[in-house]
Amino acid sequence: MARLVDDRWGKSAVRVSKILRGEGEDGDGFVDVTVDVQLRGETAAYVEGDNANVVATDTMKNTVYALAQDHLTEDLESFGRVLADRFMTHGWVTSASVALRGRRWDRFDRQGFIGGNSERRTARVVLDDAGEWVTGGIDGLVVLKTAGSGFSGFPRDEFTTLPETDDRILATTIHAEWSYDRPPSDTTATWERVRSMLVEHFFGEWSASVQNQGWMMATAVLDAVDEIDEITFRLPNQHHLGFDLTKLGLEDHGVVFHPVDEPYGDIGFTVGR
Amino acid sequence: MARLVDDRWGKSAVRVSKILRGEGEDGDGFVDVTVDVQLRGETAAYVEGDNANVVATDTMKNTVYALAQDHLTEDLESFGRVLADRFMTHGWVTSASVALRGRRWDRFDRQGFIGGNSERRTARVVLDDAGEWVTGGIDGLVVLKTAGSGFSGFPRDEFTTLPETDDRILATTIHAEWSYDRPPSDTTATWERVRSMLVEHFFGEWSASVQNQGWMMATAVLDAVDEIDEITFRLPNQHHLGFDLTKLGLEDHGVVFHPVDEPYGDIGFTVGR
Amino acid sequence: MARLVDDRWGKSAVRVSKILRGEGEDGDGFVDVTVDVQLRGETAAYVEGDNANVVATDTMKNTVYALAQDHLTEDLESFGRVLADRFMTHGWVTSASVALRGRRWDRFDRQGFIGGNSERRTARVVLDDAGEWVTGGIDGLVVLKTAGSGFSGFPRDEFTTLPETDDRILATTIHAEWSYDRPPSDTTATWERVRSMLVEHFFGEWSASVQNQGWMMATAVLDAVDEIDEITFRLPNQHHLGFDLTKLGLEDHGVVFHPVDEPYGDIGFTVGR
Amino acid sequence: MARLVDDRWGKSAVRVSKILRGEGEDGDGFVDVTVDVQLRGETAAYVEGDNANVVATDTMKNTVYALAQDHLTEDLESFGRVLADRFMTHGWVTSASVALRGRRWDRFDRQGFIGGNSERRTARVVLDDAGEWVTGGIDGLVVLKTAGSGFSGFPRDEFTTLPETDDRILATTIHAEWSYDRPPSDTTATWERVRSMLVEHFFGEWSASVQNQGWMMATAVLDAVDEIDEITFRLPNQHHLGFDLTKLGLEDHGVVFHPVDEPYGDIGFTVGR
Repeated sequence: MARLVDDRWGKSAVRVSKILRGEGEDGDGFVDVTVDVQLRGETAAYVEGDNANVVATDTMKNTVYALAQDHLTEDLESFGRVLADRFMTHGWVTSASVALRGRRWDRFDRQGFIGGNSERRTARVVLDDAGEWVTGGIDGLVVLKTAGSGFSGFPRDEFTTLPETDDRILATTIHAEWSYDRPPSDTTATWERVRSMLVEHFFGEWSASVQNQGWMMATAVLDAVDEIDEITFRLPNQHHLGFDLTKLGLEDHGVVFHPVDEPYGDIGFTVGR
Repeated sequence: MARLVDDRWGKSAVRVSKILRGEGEDGDGFVDVTVDVQLRGETAAYVEGDNANVVATDTMKNTVYALAQDHLTEDLESFGRVLADRFMTHGWVTSASVALRGRRWDRFDRQGFIGGNSERRTARVVLDDAGEWVTGGIDGLVVLKTAGSGFSGFPRDEFTTLPETDDRILATTIHAEWSYDRPPSDTTATWERVRSMLVEHFFGEWSASVQNQGWMMATAVLDAVDEIDEITFRLPNQHHLGFDLTKLGLEDHGVVFHPVDEPYGDIGFTVGR
Repeated sequence: MARLVDDRWGKSAVRVSKILRGEGEDGDGFVDVTVDVQLRGETAAYVEGDNANVVATDTMKNTVYALAQDHLTEDLESFGRVLADRFMTHGWVTSASVALRGRRWDRFDRQGFIGGNSERRTARVVLDDAGEWVTGGIDGLVVLKTAGSGFSGFPRDEFTTLPETDDRILATTIHAEWSYDRPPSDTTATWERVRSMLVEHFFGEWSASVQNQGWMMATAVLDAVDEIDEITFRLPNQHHLGFDLTKLGLEDHGVVFHPVDEPYGDIGFTVGR
Repeated sequence: MARLVDDRWGKSAVRVSKILRGEGEDGDGFVDVTVDVQLRGETAAYVEGDNANVVATDTMKNTVYALAQDHLTEDLESFGRVLADRFMTHGWVTSASVALRGRRWDRFDRQGFIGGNSERRTARVVLDDAGEWVTGGIDGLVVLKTAGSGFSGFPRDEFTTLPETDDRILATTIHAEWSYDRPPSDTTATWERVRSMLVEHFFGEWSASVQNQGWMMATAVLDAVDEIDEITFRLPNQHHLGFDLTKLGLEDHGVVFHPVDEPYGDIGFTVGR
């Protein structure tokens, strides 16, 4: 006898951009986000083929555009909340999750922007019977330092060939998501403050490992922003491997590297209070 | 006061291929897998910068190649188990997770293979103090039918514009992962059986929705394989949108479509016994 | 004094799919292509900002869908010709190029198809005052053999470290494009014949290099199809590097490899009559 | 009788990074490039399977790392020249092409850099018996303006549905490559000057089309840099389509858009003196 243990349905990768016309002295604002909607709460569609309670994913998409006109701003958390509230008005929906990813567009002039950076601001709002869960996040922030990081004192067995080092290139792409005990009044200012902490404590402190660097970044964020109760990181170690020039008959000055995408060290952790 | 709530570290995207020389009358076998290793169980690296218990991710990579020579076969679950066992020999490691993804290479002749398909066989082995958790899976299996699927009877509100239909293109990429109550003796034969059930019940039965089609696929798998106690699906609805030719002054015969990658319907669910 | 040396404008990545309803005893046919249109012949748009002769790229897109209803079949060359002819009806257009890439969908049953393969059938039709140029092609055909290929006798200098071998894995993704002296009456049958030649002469003959393997494939195609006057290949050498297990203290049986995406050997050539 | 019409072989996607230790008051420099090498000049490998003149692509890779130690700097053109010269020392090589793509790393502090931008500086050096051909380039520079661009006055036929507009979002990713009549003494300063011209003339001038905007950018570059004799652009029109909110029963204020990746307008041109 089969039973439905979990179900969710939604629309993912809904892309919407919006001009914030003439807001303030800077000129136009521009926001460009990708929205993923996920609902829970219907089983008849699966088991009986009855769609009476299946909000069409096409309707979800339309809803994103419809509500964007009045509600989409840089404050992604608020737009997410508006969307989640809307979907919860269907009495049979037990949970609504809205995840948002904002592309970064740097202002050039009053109506011009430069993009192309992999960095994203993210947010997520989940509503269900138990309440509301709001997170902020950053994704795709690529950082590298040519000094200020080592890795030594690790255990060695017969398959260990990595030399110890107290000086190496450390490169990663920061993925962080933090949950709010209570969302701050200005989520954009808070996001900028978290980003500053991440960058400063990546570049500013010597670390014994990616793990150690991440711990410093995490604790700095918790120290700086009271509203955050927990932060989760994923920090891939994007290796720049020394290329051994001695095998080509050359003296090796230790400055030439081979960057590789795979494999990569894959470090994840969560820090709470 | 900050505390480490969760930690994991590992090596991801370790790619290894192996020739299985002259096994049987068919000629060489060839397996080509990507391995992700994740361990848990050290906190001093984060908080104190002490690496005494940090198995280097480079060592994990070497271990994959070292053990591949004797242990890598098409039975990905067994190779995953060998690797996880090895990592658990470090007394301080509390959990070892090994995930594997095998590329599909179709035999052409005794030593020749044709690849290029997005389909993957996956497996995952997790060991911890509580025991062993083994899953099999399939990923990237792309299927499309030109009939045999409808979508109607869904709720309508002011943002609903989707017409009802009892005949549409249904296309998806099957992602499924199932957990074994007890791993079967022949995981490869079991995998082939699951794949058959998925394909037959996608193409063979009319469905009222992606959800409904998925339910039929899931229950067919549970009926066919006793060792599986639960199966989780993700089935993106990869839309082929009718292109309205009447706006170009043409009669529209309903056979021309605009395939789009985004947005996509995003259906997920878990079915147990 | 600046002058416009070359110009082209068009719409790329126009995706269109079509059901060929109930054609023959097999059931529905299904074609799924991506079309790139490029025109030449207007300069005032650039220099003067005068759009009087700029066929809108949006119109090109609409034209692809409009003409697909009556003209799109598996014979991509013919559909390309219909499109190019249409664009040349604008008197000021001096050249029309239409390139097509068809996704591969393998029939499962009367109305069901399995996809996911990277292999593509391609075609290109270029019309200008000088006449018509038609090509067929194949792209993304991934092949690998565990024997039947060597590489030795190459020059050595102080930066050469590659050992000679008379037995290695040879893997590539075949990209080939051939020009027709005159297009054959059945382009689909011709395409299948070319594909057979490529596959047979990749797997069936021992080669001293990718170059040598490619030459055998090219000459086989020219021998088999009279209408083809020239064929161009790109054959990346997708390395499976031997992983040296002796550095881990193990005996190395030469069966474990590290597949890498980059760098890759990059072999290209054109063979004519 | 088949004959080899063209041949080339090489190594592509050779990734090399280098620390420029303590150069000047800023701290370390860091360059991170991908190199593609292509040679011409041997036919026996194809036709006869004779590798006597086939410089191994593995040797090419080693050569890039070997020469990087002394010669790789931000001046990509010079490093390309050193590599091409080296490959031409093989008497039988008739042509050597070296293409380079540099990732952008923005300085944060003395030893820290922020990356993640799609923008690339490119260069290419080709040597053959006829001489030397050097190009500079920029790739992946993403720009968007919310005003300052229209598109109207284009021809209309029965498949034209695009409305005319004198106010739209214009977004593109700039790909430009310019050839030097004679390479400038400071290629980095020249590259910065070209980039400034591109950005200023994209944002600073109203345009009637992508073509028109591109012409202004091209002529500004030719005016600003005497050493450039020709510049080639590819400017995809990355559409932000107005989402028609009136079909949802809403007043449409013209500020909500649907960004799409495909299809895209595809504009290319070359401007010379």
